[in-house]
Amino acid sequence: MRGHINENKQKQVYKVIGKHVYGNLYEIEDKFLTDLEFLIDIVNKSAEIGNLHIIEVYTKKFKAINNMPGGVSVIALLEESHIALHTWPESNYATIDIYSCGKKSSPEESFKFILNKLKPKTFKMFKADRGN
Amino acid sequence: MRGHINENKQKQVYKVIGKHVYGNLYEIEDKFLTDLEFLIDIVNKSAEIGNLHIIEVYTKKFKAINNMPGGVSVIALLEESHIALHTWPESNYATIDIYSCGKKSSPEESFKFILNKLKPKTFKMFKADRGN
Repeated sequence: MRGHINENKQKQVYKVIGKHVYGNLYEIEDKFLTDLEFLIDIVNKSAEIGNLHIIEVYTKKFKAINNMPGGVSVIALLEESHIALHTWPESNYATIDIYSCGKKSSPEESFKFILNKLKPKTFKMFKADRGN
Repeated sequence: MRGHINENKQKQVYKVIGKHVYGNLYEIEDKFLTDLEFLIDIVNKSAEIGNLHIIEVYTKKFKAINNMPGGVSVIALLEESHIALHTWPESNYATIDIYSCGKKSSPEESFKFILNKLKPKTFKMFKADRGN
């Protein structure tokens, strides 16, 4: 862990590495967006691939809207921060957030893994520096 | 809920409103970053203020590092998506994510509320469109 001295406070201030990769995924087939077990599985595997360590995975399956199956939220609390996957089957849409403060992790790889599993026709990916 | 017809599929594709407000907060006093009950409380209140509806709040208190108290993660699964608050006392640092697909919610207000409670000397705030 790297650090630098804050002269005023005489306290070593450690550098936080914070890599946040997130995206919006369009035109996904319905079947990928409603299957809770499948979505939990890809979140678990995406963590493994990105060298992220899951503490716990939390889920919510939402109620049907206008006779369309409801969406799903899968949130993984990580040793390195969090993963959040939200789906909207009524819009064939999903979003992914992979946020990691792990120096040896690759949230990009986790993101790509989920992308390959959900197979959107188009998507947007963004990166944000969440370090100090 | 607004929608438009996708002519190819003859399926109504609903518009998802997705407002994501996030930020990095620097030079926060130690005492605000280690008190799990305080941090859970401000996440709960921030949701109320932003008209967000909590399904469940999940937490993790991390172990001490080099004799410094460990950080905290507080993640709220919302009817409208999620809130994530992560703290690093060893760096006097915290990050906030407020992500809402609620049409009547104000993640900006939730963000400002937490900001006022954590009182960082400086911060960066960002907004991302997470809609389709």
